[in-house]
Parts: sequence; C-alpha cells; structure tokens
Amino acid sequence: MGSIGSHGFSHERELARRLWMLGYAVMRAPASGKRTRFLKYPDLVAIKNSRVLVFEVKTTRSLNNIYIPSRQVEKLLEFAKRACGEAYIAVKIIGSGKWVLVKISDLVKVSESRFKVPAKIISNSSLLEDII
Amino acid sequence: MGSIGSHGFSHERELARRLWMLGYAVMRAPASGKRTRFLKYPDLVAIKNSRVLVFEVKTTRSLNNIYIPSRQVEKLLEFAKRACGEAYIAVKIIGSGKWVLVKISDLVKVSESRFKVPAKIISNSSLLEDII
Repeated sequence: MGSIGSHGFSHERELARRLWMLGYAVMRAPASGKRTRFLKYPDLVAIKNSRVLVFEVKTTRSLNNIYIPSRQVEKLLEFAKRACGEAYIAVKIIGSGKWVLVKISDLVKVSESRFKVPAKIISNSSLLEDII
Repeated sequence: MGSIGSHGFSHERELARRLWMLGYAVMRAPASGKRTRFLKYPDLVAIKNSRVLVFEVKTTRSLNNIYIPSRQVEKLLEFAKRACGEAYIAVKIIGSGKWVLVKISDLVKVSESRFKVPAKIISNSSLLEDII
C-alpha cells in the first residue's frame, strides 16, 4: 500500500498554500475530533470566482495503488454535490514534489468499505497545474 | 460590550448545522492554533449551487454594540473577495435564539484595530432566514 498516513497534514498545508498563491480562497477542515457527526467535510476546499474545488489529500512515495475508505469518498461527494463543486483525490507524489488530481470517476470500488486509486490512474492523471 | 467570547464554538456549530439542514455544504475553520499564518479563514463557509457565504460568528445577550478586531474583518473580506462570496457578521441573539446577518458595509471603524457593530444595526439587520 503506497499511502503514507491517512491525513498528511503538512502535505495538506502545502497544497493549501499553493492554491492560495494561485488566488484561491482556501479552507482546511478542522481536525477529525472536532468534526460534528452530521457535517461532511473534505480535507480542503478552494474557491475562486465561484469555481469550487474539494479535495481529499493523499500521499504516495512510489506509484502504488492507494486505498481510500468509502466514507471519505462519500463525504467528499456529498459536499461537492451541495456546493456544485469539482471533487478530486489530490495525490502528492513524494520525491517528485508533484501533485496529481484524480477524478472520482476513476476510483475503483474494491469492497463495501473502500475504493482503490489504481497506480496506473495516478500516473495518467492530470497535474494540479493543468487543472487549476 | 455585548459580545460573549470571541469564538462561541457551540453557537458556530449551531449555525453550521442550520445551514447544512438548508442544503448548504458547510465547513468550519480549524481552531486558531492550526491556522497557518498566510491563510486567511473566516469562522464558517457555506456553499450551495455556487453561492458562497462567509461568516464571522458573534453572540450577544442583549442588544449592545459588538466590537470586532480589524484583522478578523480583513481576513473575512480577503476570503470573500477571492471566492466571490458574500461576507457577513453572523450575530446570535442569545435568549431569542435568532440569528441576524450584518453586512460588512454596516460596520463602523472606531480605531485602527477594531470595528463596531452598532446595536441599532443589529436590531435592524436581516434575519438569517430572510437572506438564505
């Protein structure tokens, strides 16, 4: 499994900073303990001129599959639906310093409780700079 | 000074819940300690069909003036500008259970470091339900 930690706060912060520098209004989610049960938060929301981007943030050291709990995908989609936003899994490729944005439609459901981001999808997905 | 505490987390949570029930995607800011220096967060962001609302949350027990540090107003405005959102001071009138939304243009700058929300403005401002 290529995912290092489920949160990666420092990477999340780096992504937030990059989006802020690009002119986006950016907000990171409160730490998990503070999330109320009924609200569904993504890791990060970025808004610019009414374009709304919502992200779950993952990291990988090498190009392996990444697994994501279904509930994380569901809360991302629920938030994006309400906001009319675009939902992505933002994957930081550690070492290269690159950020890849994976579309939710490219995830593969492997069981009731989790989705897979196939390694091949990660290497074929668009870079942050190409989408933003 | 009619403001009770500068954060009022439980009131913030109540506002978040009301907006969520109205179909908004809602995100509360991380606790202050987690805010990075360069990012400017409002207390709460709510988005529905690309309508973006940003809030600083205050409470008052009786209809007195409320004072707000300038830096809070500035971060609210910076975030709203980037997001093309509407910025409000959301004031909970404790006791009545009502939420009033004060427009930023109704604030009065009383010194370099703070703004005043005059009591008269609070009693004349629109209720949450009338704006949302």
